[in-house]
Amino acid sequence: MIYSWQELSQQVETSVNSFDFSGKPDELYDPISYTMTLGGKRIRPTLCLLAAQLFGGNLLNANNLAMAVEVFHNFTLVHDDIMDEAPIRRGKPAVHAKWNRDIAILSGDVMFVQAYQLLAKGNPERLSEMLSVFNQTAIEVCEGQQLDMNFETRDDVTAENYIDMIRLKTGVLLACSLQLGALESGASEKDGKLIYEFGEKIGIAFQIQDDFLDCYAKQEDFGKRVGGDIISNKKTFLMLTATEKANEGQANKLNGLMSIKISDEEKVSGVLEIYNELEVPSLTKFAMQNYFDKSLAALNQIEAATDLKQPLIELAEMLMMRKK
Amino acid sequence: MIYSWQELSQQVETSVNSFDFSGKPDELYDPISYTMTLGGKRIRPTLCLLAAQLFGGNLLNANNLAMAVEVFHNFTLVHDDIMDEAPIRRGKPAVHAKWNRDIAILSGDVMFVQAYQLLAKGNPERLSEMLSVFNQTAIEVCEGQQLDMNFETRDDVTAENYIDMIRLKTGVLLACSLQLGALESGASEKDGKLIYEFGEKIGIAFQIQDDFLDCYAKQEDFGKRVGGDIISNKKTFLMLTATEKANEGQANKLNGLMSIKISDEEKVSGVLEIYNELEVPSLTKFAMQNYFDKSLAALNQIEAATDLKQPLIELAEMLMMRKK
Repeated sequence: MIYSWQELSQQVETSVNSFDFSGKPDELYDPISYTMTLGGKRIRPTLCLLAAQLFGGNLLNANNLAMAVEVFHNFTLVHDDIMDEAPIRRGKPAVHAKWNRDIAILSGDVMFVQAYQLLAKGNPERLSEMLSVFNQTAIEVCEGQQLDMNFETRDDVTAENYIDMIRLKTGVLLACSLQLGALESGASEKDGKLIYEFGEKIGIAFQIQDDFLDCYAKQEDFGKRVGGDIISNKKTFLMLTATEKANEGQANKLNGLMSIKISDEEKVSGVLEIYNELEVPSLTKFAMQNYFDKSLAALNQIEAATDLKQPLIELAEMLMMRKK
Repeated sequence: MIYSWQELSQQVETSVNSFDFSGKPDELYDPISYTMTLGGKRIRPTLCLLAAQLFGGNLLNANNLAMAVEVFHNFTLVHDDIMDEAPIRRGKPAVHAKWNRDIAILSGDVMFVQAYQLLAKGNPERLSEMLSVFNQTAIEVCEGQQLDMNFETRDDVTAENYIDMIRLKTGVLLACSLQLGALESGASEKDGKLIYEFGEKIGIAFQIQDDFLDCYAKQEDFGKRVGGDIISNKKTFLMLTATEKANEGQANKLNGLMSIKISDEEKVSGVLEIYNELEVPSLTKFAMQNYFDKSLAALNQIEAATDLKQPLIELAEMLMMRKK
């Protein structure tokens, strides 16, 4: 039988919640159990299991790798929340806010090792390849976070720089999760690279969509405040595209809206007006569609049965809000 | 030919200084090159190479593992300095002081991955064992750091608890460094465990000695201020031993010295007087000698030529200040 992404996602949730993250001293391990059971969409481990299924592997074996990527992802959230001074994570206090900075640093470090402990349970014949892709990914995720922080104070960021940053910050870990599942199941090197590309491109498309929705979602469908990125002067794909396309008058108007003291409503509607003048919405949708198409093209090239690809396509469509 | 520890230590210094730690973005990688070239005694990588030599292995292959433990050790220093709010490391500004907290967290994380990248170059046949000992060690080092922080505010710490903390914080990484070198060179599981024990026990002996010297070194031979631990109320092996041995009067006197406002000189001489009354110096020397003996006993049991053990014995004697 072929499992749907919903079934495998449920399986991941059960695995995470039954995993024993406890240890001594409590101060170090309580934040780990807390973080891991805060929920979340479990996209990365689900992708790992879907890739393992695609190549006919044993899902029980792949489960350790699925856990590895989920623990790693949560480690990055614990450290990122310190850096971003974000007090809330998934509606609950972030670790550094509930405990303190030092405990967040150190229990994050332990989670990082736990990810490697889980990874080390992978298929011994492919362990070296798995370590290699995981190490490279972990470094790239850190690079993405550093670039993201650098962008806040840089004024020469291009839309292309931005795409590379979100590729590192989001794309490569989705890609790695899939590749690990594929390697565990004995996929060829070529198919491992194709499934990696599928995840990388879907990650970029998803992040561009996230920027788009921040401006154009209906408030009732959107978890955050619509226009939040505009209000906080965030360098999103839309803002960077607008900056590149703007003529002198439009550029001055944009800079004015971002620096003078006006109401949030005026700022958002002023910026959206310029976005519309410059056709930023359709350019953004085009970029999104372009990465989504590339993602599916990579999946299409993989040598595996079409019905085994279907759950991956459905998860991709769900991420791109084309299906529930 | 058999290399002395001094020769191998020099080799490590050369390797570290010729290794390319650079990458993009600079903000992430500059602190790594900076940290790695600050110097230090390079004890851990030297132990790794000595163990590789002991079991007849190729020192060039073991060099990657030596680098792995040195990068890992320096990663822990970068994160520890944030937690301890220590502005200076090896006479230079610590990373979080020279750059900032976020860069110290993130470049520390990258160093952690770099350690795994170097480890992954180890002997493929023993990679799984190496990963396992390294993961376990990395977790224990974090546990040791957390216990150390907990001890500051706990008033029920025993000398035994303290030994376990220094075992985790210092002993296990010396032990792991040796075991990795041994595994690389094809040592048996039994000899791998014995060389681990040699390092673990030497680490404990060394830390106890460090506490001893803080009270009893001649100022001209000692890098820090003699009596510094007493002045800062640090729960050292000596203080915890004194607390355990003290009668009610002595305990009250100790508590008084630690809480009332007196000059540093009065405090140090008052505490040393109690240490002497309770024979703390000889108890401490006894504990030190006991761990040193256990360490050499483990080395003695290893099936390897005596002349290959000699450089390890000499490094141990240097650490215990019995030889230059």
